[in-house]
Amino acid sequence: MAYPLSQVPVVVSVSAAHRRPPHVVVVGGGFGGLQTVKALRRLPVDVTLIDRTNYHLFQPLTYQVATAALSPDEIAEPLRTIFRRDRNVRVLLGEVTGVDLERRVVTMRPGVDELSPQTIPYDTLVVATGSSYSYFGHEEWRSHALEVKTLDGALDVRGRILRAFEAAELAAESPSRDAWLTFVVVGGGPTGVEMAGQIGELARDALPHDFRATDPRRGRILLVEATDRILPYFPPRLSQRSATALRELGVTPLTGHTVVGVDANAVEIRGPDGAVERVQTRTVVWAAGVTASSLAGALAGAAGADIDANGRVTVEPDLTLPAHPDVLAIGDMVRVRDRATGTANALPGLAPVAMQQGRYVGRLVGDRLAQRATPPWRYRDKGNLATIGRGRAVADLPPRLRLAGLVAWVIWLAVHLWYLVGFENRVVVFVRWAYSFLTRNRGARLIT
Amino acid sequence: MAYPLSQVPVVVSVSAAHRRPPHVVVVGGGFGGLQTVKALRRLPVDVTLIDRTNYHLFQPLTYQVATAALSPDEIAEPLRTIFRRDRNVRVLLGEVTGVDLERRVVTMRPGVDELSPQTIPYDTLVVATGSSYSYFGHEEWRSHALEVKTLDGALDVRGRILRAFEAAELAAESPSRDAWLTFVVVGGGPTGVEMAGQIGELARDALPHDFRATDPRRGRILLVEATDRILPYFPPRLSQRSATALRELGVTPLTGHTVVGVDANAVEIRGPDGAVERVQTRTVVWAAGVTASSLAGALAGAAGADIDANGRVTVEPDLTLPAHPDVLAIGDMVRVRDRATGTANALPGLAPVAMQQGRYVGRLVGDRLAQRATPPWRYRDKGNLATIGRGRAVADLPPRLRLAGLVAWVIWLAVHLWYLVGFENRVVVFVRWAYSFLTRNRGARLIT
Repeated sequence: MAYPLSQVPVVVSVSAAHRRPPHVVVVGGGFGGLQTVKALRRLPVDVTLIDRTNYHLFQPLTYQVATAALSPDEIAEPLRTIFRRDRNVRVLLGEVTGVDLERRVVTMRPGVDELSPQTIPYDTLVVATGSSYSYFGHEEWRSHALEVKTLDGALDVRGRILRAFEAAELAAESPSRDAWLTFVVVGGGPTGVEMAGQIGELARDALPHDFRATDPRRGRILLVEATDRILPYFPPRLSQRSATALRELGVTPLTGHTVVGVDANAVEIRGPDGAVERVQTRTVVWAAGVTASSLAGALAGAAGADIDANGRVTVEPDLTLPAHPDVLAIGDMVRVRDRATGTANALPGLAPVAMQQGRYVGRLVGDRLAQRATPPWRYRDKGNLATIGRGRAVADLPPRLRLAGLVAWVIWLAVHLWYLVGFENRVVVFVRWAYSFLTRNRGARLIT
Repeated sequence: MAYPLSQVPVVVSVSAAHRRPPHVVVVGGGFGGLQTVKALRRLPVDVTLIDRTNYHLFQPLTYQVATAALSPDEIAEPLRTIFRRDRNVRVLLGEVTGVDLERRVVTMRPGVDELSPQTIPYDTLVVATGSSYSYFGHEEWRSHALEVKTLDGALDVRGRILRAFEAAELAAESPSRDAWLTFVVVGGGPTGVEMAGQIGELARDALPHDFRATDPRRGRILLVEATDRILPYFPPRLSQRSATALRELGVTPLTGHTVVGVDANAVEIRGPDGAVERVQTRTVVWAAGVTASSLAGALAGAAGADIDANGRVTVEPDLTLPAHPDVLAIGDMVRVRDRATGTANALPGLAPVAMQQGRYVGRLVGDRLAQRATPPWRYRDKGNLATIGRGRAVADLPPRLRLAGLVAWVIWLAVHLWYLVGFENRVVVFVRWAYSFLTRNRGARLIT
């Protein structure tokens, strides 16, 4: 296997360089990238992991940072800490801006402004850069809406929600107070449901005794979902149970409603009857529509692969790019071609899908080194969990276990503590959750 | 006692309004303001606490946030949470921009941009707005230097220090790498010593195994102090012990050195021999020179009180403003006139001074309500503590107990856990410290 000379340290002779192990570049330290590197670290390969942040984010809990239940440090673990003992893994802080499939190099903009772009050669490339929210062609809404996709976004949401209550307290009896106490969450998937439920719990349980001139329980929380039920990926009965649980927390689910306008002061919502209502609000959390990372489009363009309406590139049954077996892409930026039918399947954008794909990539690279064949990747459905609030959750577990309420919530707690990265984080999050459960208070209510 | 009509709720008749309790406005939720309100909450008064942030910050530990040992939420507690059960205490998020001593109102800019300034009348006013770092007339240095005075400042320092190591890793062998690995701390007081020691510990204990191309232990950490020893408020022997402990952590204390220039790329330091050296660095932490909050100057101007070179207003022996018994000022923004000698004493800018003054203010207000006389305020020196690193601290405890090393460190730990506000915070901080002690790792290493 040829190895670019630029990668060879000066002190190593050219003959020794030929014995250097293959170099796998992994782009993205989310669930997919992390599992890929974990699966690769015991193999005779050199791994370079590139991420825009210096940490792996446990994204299923970012909404808890956004609603002041947890601290950022508790749901994120530095990538360097995770791989500190793996001498064949190096971590680089930067953003990959391009891939040259012919020269087999990626271009990286370092995560420190003062440094110039670098090119990094690869023998095998794994792209796992995920997705972001789409605004259905209305990019002008993005600047007015908040998101809980990243840690910085979640901190922003936390500050905005807490500041809205402060503003209501300061604004006293005035028409603007109602706007401050109105929260609109767009998108009835797990993130939207969890956000709306947690804002409800914050307003109803944690804050009521903290204000003198305003009553946080008077807050209005709207959850807007375009289809006819929330949590559309769950069985209808669990959707119903979730809607009931949300209403108990003061949330109004607006199914069959569509957002048709977002500005600094209001959201315009079209109901099932076609009438448009303008809702005055200062806080809009966006959790609807997904578009794949721009690298998906770049890869598709360079390799002539298919791309769908959400920007996802179609990969082969073994997760490789068509005609480029040295490039793999995983996670919610891809659809996987089915070997039997030839059609491309979009899987839900969930952590287990990306994690299973990451582990598969590790296995594939190992099989190639050993010159073994690898069967195509197959998704094993582990089920779906979503939590609405304290003691309220739904679980859809294969083959046909469907739970709602306290038992589902305990399963949710256990699964999330189990998968949380970092032993210390597990202990601290357990303390926080136990404290919140007992006192209904929230430990991370800072506006920073 | 006259009460401004504007304060009277519309539903209350004028005769009932006369029975309303006196209104005490406390400006600043630091150690002084917090203790003031805690002392007032059991009295028949209405209290309004105004702060620019929504939390009380345990400032002695901000340097631990700056060096990734603790999370922001762990050393700050929302003011509303602290006073949630005290119905006579209201908290407002805002910045007091002016005081009208004649009309007895303060002007507040609300902490939410969209709202207009408000005036708030008082019967008694307590100003506890602290101090900030001074740049000895070189305001242009401020934009290049970092500070750990606030939580946002500490997070900024954390990001900058961690990013410097990332940059060194990305910059590979190049002259700029040395600049990234050079850290300059200005000011040899407790904050400077603690910052320098913690950067040393971070580089030496927590990070070495995390990087592949760079060795964090090669970092250069300079602690610049103008006088002839660090920790000048401590006995000379403890200053010496601290200097030794710092050297063991890789810190170079430069006593008798003065900073004469700061820009984006370097610090210029003049040695005892008068020669100026230009040190290339990307990270300068400023912890030298103190100037009182601008409200100190405003009060002094309005009341004709003395003001010193550091902007501190001189208050009477009972902490009131001269000729204005309804206005009190406390903390490191004041000097207190000695009744016997008539001279104004500046006390060290420490939490215990502000806390004792806050409790005194509560007592004074209670005595006035009961028409009792109050003896002048007296400072009780509880001693000084400073920590340099794991197992390394100094303690100067009256009357003459002077400790260095492990025992001083255990005392430091116990005192800081004890005074930390919030039970949950104590538990979580204890877990973090125990974890760090056992693993030498740090749990809060995020660049956000």
